[in-house]
Amino acid sequence: MTTQAGSGHPTSCLSAADIVAALFFYAMHFDPQNPHNPNNDQFILSKGHAAPLLYAVWKELGIIAPADLLSLRDIDSVLEGHPTPRFSRVDVATGSLGQGLSMGIGIASAARLDKREYKTYVLLGDMETTEGQVWEAAEIAAHYKLSSLIAIIDCNNLGQSTQALDDYDLDAYHAKFTAFGWHSLIFDGHAMPDIMRAFDQAKKNKDKPMVLIAKTIKGYGLDTIENKQGFHGKAFSSAELPSLLEQLKKRFPAAATYDDEYQWQPQIPSTKGISVPSKKVTSVSLKQTYATSSDVATRKAYGQALVDLGAQLADGVVLDAEVKNSTFAELFEKHYPDRFFQCFIAEQNMVSMGVGLTARGKIPFISTFGAFFTRAYDQIRMAAIGRSALRLCGSHAGVSIGEDGPSQMALEDIAMMRAIPDSAILYPCDGVSTYKMVEIMAHRNDGITYLRTTRATTPIIYSAQEEFELGGCKILRQSEHDVACIVSAGITVFEALKAYEMLQKENRSVAVIDAYSVKPLAEATIIAIAKKSGNRIITVEDHYLEGGLGQAVAYAVRNESITIECLAVTKLPRSGKPEQLLAFEEIDANAIVKMVKYLTM
Amino acid sequence: MTTQAGSGHPTSCLSAADIVAALFFYAMHFDPQNPHNPNNDQFILSKGHAAPLLYAVWKELGIIAPADLLSLRDIDSVLEGHPTPRFSRVDVATGSLGQGLSMGIGIASAARLDKREYKTYVLLGDMETTEGQVWEAAEIAAHYKLSSLIAIIDCNNLGQSTQALDDYDLDAYHAKFTAFGWHSLIFDGHAMPDIMRAFDQAKKNKDKPMVLIAKTIKGYGLDTIENKQGFHGKAFSSAELPSLLEQLKKRFPAAATYDDEYQWQPQIPSTKGISVPSKKVTSVSLKQTYATSSDVATRKAYGQALVDLGAQLADGVVLDAEVKNSTFAELFEKHYPDRFFQCFIAEQNMVSMGVGLTARGKIPFISTFGAFFTRAYDQIRMAAIGRSALRLCGSHAGVSIGEDGPSQMALEDIAMMRAIPDSAILYPCDGVSTYKMVEIMAHRNDGITYLRTTRATTPIIYSAQEEFELGGCKILRQSEHDVACIVSAGITVFEALKAYEMLQKENRSVAVIDAYSVKPLAEATIIAIAKKSGNRIITVEDHYLEGGLGQAVAYAVRNESITIECLAVTKLPRSGKPEQLLAFEEIDANAIVKMVKYLTM
Repeated sequence: MTTQAGSGHPTSCLSAADIVAALFFYAMHFDPQNPHNPNNDQFILSKGHAAPLLYAVWKELGIIAPADLLSLRDIDSVLEGHPTPRFSRVDVATGSLGQGLSMGIGIASAARLDKREYKTYVLLGDMETTEGQVWEAAEIAAHYKLSSLIAIIDCNNLGQSTQALDDYDLDAYHAKFTAFGWHSLIFDGHAMPDIMRAFDQAKKNKDKPMVLIAKTIKGYGLDTIENKQGFHGKAFSSAELPSLLEQLKKRFPAAATYDDEYQWQPQIPSTKGISVPSKKVTSVSLKQTYATSSDVATRKAYGQALVDLGAQLADGVVLDAEVKNSTFAELFEKHYPDRFFQCFIAEQNMVSMGVGLTARGKIPFISTFGAFFTRAYDQIRMAAIGRSALRLCGSHAGVSIGEDGPSQMALEDIAMMRAIPDSAILYPCDGVSTYKMVEIMAHRNDGITYLRTTRATTPIIYSAQEEFELGGCKILRQSEHDVACIVSAGITVFEALKAYEMLQKENRSVAVIDAYSVKPLAEATIIAIAKKSGNRIITVEDHYLEGGLGQAVAYAVRNESITIECLAVTKLPRSGKPEQLLAFEEIDANAIVKMVKYLTM
Repeated sequence: MTTQAGSGHPTSCLSAADIVAALFFYAMHFDPQNPHNPNNDQFILSKGHAAPLLYAVWKELGIIAPADLLSLRDIDSVLEGHPTPRFSRVDVATGSLGQGLSMGIGIASAARLDKREYKTYVLLGDMETTEGQVWEAAEIAAHYKLSSLIAIIDCNNLGQSTQALDDYDLDAYHAKFTAFGWHSLIFDGHAMPDIMRAFDQAKKNKDKPMVLIAKTIKGYGLDTIENKQGFHGKAFSSAELPSLLEQLKKRFPAAATYDDEYQWQPQIPSTKGISVPSKKVTSVSLKQTYATSSDVATRKAYGQALVDLGAQLADGVVLDAEVKNSTFAELFEKHYPDRFFQCFIAEQNMVSMGVGLTARGKIPFISTFGAFFTRAYDQIRMAAIGRSALRLCGSHAGVSIGEDGPSQMALEDIAMMRAIPDSAILYPCDGVSTYKMVEIMAHRNDGITYLRTTRATTPIIYSAQEEFELGGCKILRQSEHDVACIVSAGITVFEALKAYEMLQKENRSVAVIDAYSVKPLAEATIIAIAKKSGNRIITVEDHYLEGGLGQAVAYAVRNESITIECLAVTKLPRSGKPEQLLAFEEIDANAIVKMVKYLTM
């Protein structure tokens, strides 16, 4: 495969080949023909660069036609360089290292919620255990006593450019995982009876997750290459291939005479019980009951909406990174403690755990401070590549959080989430719209959906009947003689409304738009209103200029005869009172008024 | 302080107060008056929310005037809610948890390079040890045997919303750190003799880093509050304050009668030896020697330029996350092995380690795949808040890497880096410009500078004499009758040049710009050329549309009468050959030609 493709990681496949063979053809209970059997054991290839090994397995299982194997890495092949769900037997994308174990936690947690007995196997490379996320996963899996989770570490000691940090010291891995609360077993990853015994033992495992630490050899079976540095990620040439295959056949005479007609029988689990839950949410309807004159923080409304959601969505689960009393995820926990996951301060694991949960039909809502989703950008990126439907809520957006200072302010989250393929970004300004947007999130069954919430309480400005939609916006103020259109979202909606009042007193009218759907943006409406508003737009946002709402609007109107200026955070923020910081960054009502006057001089 | 500010974390300060008192007034050797003494012991408050405790220390040391303490969290105060270098005794920003230990590794590594004896102390909260980055740091510090690094964990068991994952089980922390190769000691964090003995022992420490595990009590000293959940991040009201202060005085009668005139003497280390190296690089001049007709990958040119740089910059160091043979950081390692840090696959630690190195006058160049800097976005964000000068190089940009597939492609890195305050982004297309840009990076002594390199070899198009500058661009093609201006960068420069040739054959002329300085952008030049090119711009980039080069240009020309269309990656990429993927995403020469024709129909 890799020779045909001209690239790939054959030596990384060879170190794990015996393990994976034992796993699929001895240990795992699953129906190769029916990936929807809800009791199938699950497998995640965390060391995603060994994808050809996985494809070889599915070829043996009859799912990939032998000829199709040679399409590896072709642009029209589902057999990508690293596994993605384009191939039907892969649920999660891997290839950025150190994420698989967290996904396994999500899957094992779903199994527990559904009271199913299946096991979740995750194959890691030794080099990826230096990723901190692996240790986040290790501690969370132990905390939740996920005994159905079985990690296997392929310790071949050779990375891309150097040796493993722990060298071939398998006791070091053992000590680390034991200290983190795992059962652990060291074995020879090329001695088939040992491998089988290891899996037997892992399956009997109770109380704790278990790690199987396999001593392996990179390039195993190739006399001239095995255990040598310098062959990572190198496909062999067509000229080299025959002699290398000869080496393999000589080393494994049984395999060399292997008979394709061998009657291996899969251990198919019962399909009894509930079918795999549908991932599609279609009929949630959330009912808020805010008084029109009341104030509520959108972050709190998020938590309140989750409670309502939890009643309607049996598969809805909530994850939070030890800030549940700030994000208000705690309101959900109070009602549905079994469906709430305290993920501690470990955002990377939390997001990838969400990926695992979605793979088993759960609907995770994942919250932390918006600023701290920067910690999990790689995991969000990989979730998008895997087409996982994640619902993320980032609270404490912008400088308006005030005194805690810049480390706690989400100011790049819109830019970050906009650059995720197929993402959506919702940014409500009041409690009513927050409820509606949680509803929209629930119904968005594909891709990453990000909700941005605000720390401060804000007034309710919408009636309970107001309709909201992905790609929509609200025209809050408009007249026949507007000189500019103010495009705001979240906290700046109120600054725009204040500016409106200030300008009214001076007999100037502006249109005010609540662009609550930052992505997709209500481009046509914004352009139409701007054209009725002196062909002028002023955007105002509590976010850095680059990649934010303003630049999204500027792009949308790029070929219109519209003058546009963007008010955004452009100075490195600091501690201070919210209103002082809005003034400091020139994103408050005064700044809007000043800009309107400047543009209409 | 926190009562005056109306917010803050007094109970988190009280758990660590005894430790910090012993540290500054007993253990540490430093000159309070001279932060530039190169032999001062160093301290990092990883649990940044305990900032008032740090400020209280510096008040005792005479650096903060008593009255100024009450300015905590004011907009014009340097005493921010979480520590930042606005306060002269803070070198690194903390407040996003789990980053301090990695910064400490950077500082301790600088000490070793400079052959200095000073110690580096890092105070962590127990809750932040769930961040995977702490374990990345733990393994790297042990790997490098950084015995001058002393971590202290303030185990008060209470987080913001829940108890520590390991509860008050201090043996669990001990087991984990021991397994990770550290010396470890458990002690009572409120028994002063025990604390002093712990520091005595830590200072005698050899061969390994050491962790001091302190059992503490959150809100210690306040009878009605200590060790109770629900007081995290809560300032006490003015009404409550007097009785709480009474509780403290009753508990600590010696402190209650404390005499400010007590003649404590700092243990000032010798200032002998070299002075703290200047962080300002001013006079690097790199000389490439590429033949004009040769090809070289910009990633390789980066590595080659580093070798030249290493000879001129004694404080230059290089960090890489186990991809040194892909980023070509290995070329530097071959020449300067002592100044090369193999950071293994642990990008978060690597970036924060860079922050620590800059704090001690080192000039780190930090490389990995551009895609994997997403793993460290929070750390880059915090580095910017701390005004650390980091030079980052992300290789393997875009779909043009080909068969490895989307997990390995940097496609959101420009958006991510643009949204970092005071950042600069350089994106060379050939070997010559790469050299020049490494030179520009070296001279950029403030903020985050990001260099984006390409996997494939590309032709040398610039002469050795060509000048490049931050905020500059190159006009590669221009005539009197251009119908559009193509703005490209990196790999797409060559697609633009190809498109130019294709259009020439049809007697159409376009201007071609190499926008190598993505941030700051050569706005004026781009606008001027566009105005001479039919008022049309077509941007073309190997990056997602959102937040990329195109939207930066669209924003720059927003109020000009210029038609602009942006060619960028808009479909979820997949494995394939580079040229197939450029075509698939419509960012190749054909797509440019098509767009020129469309706009000039």
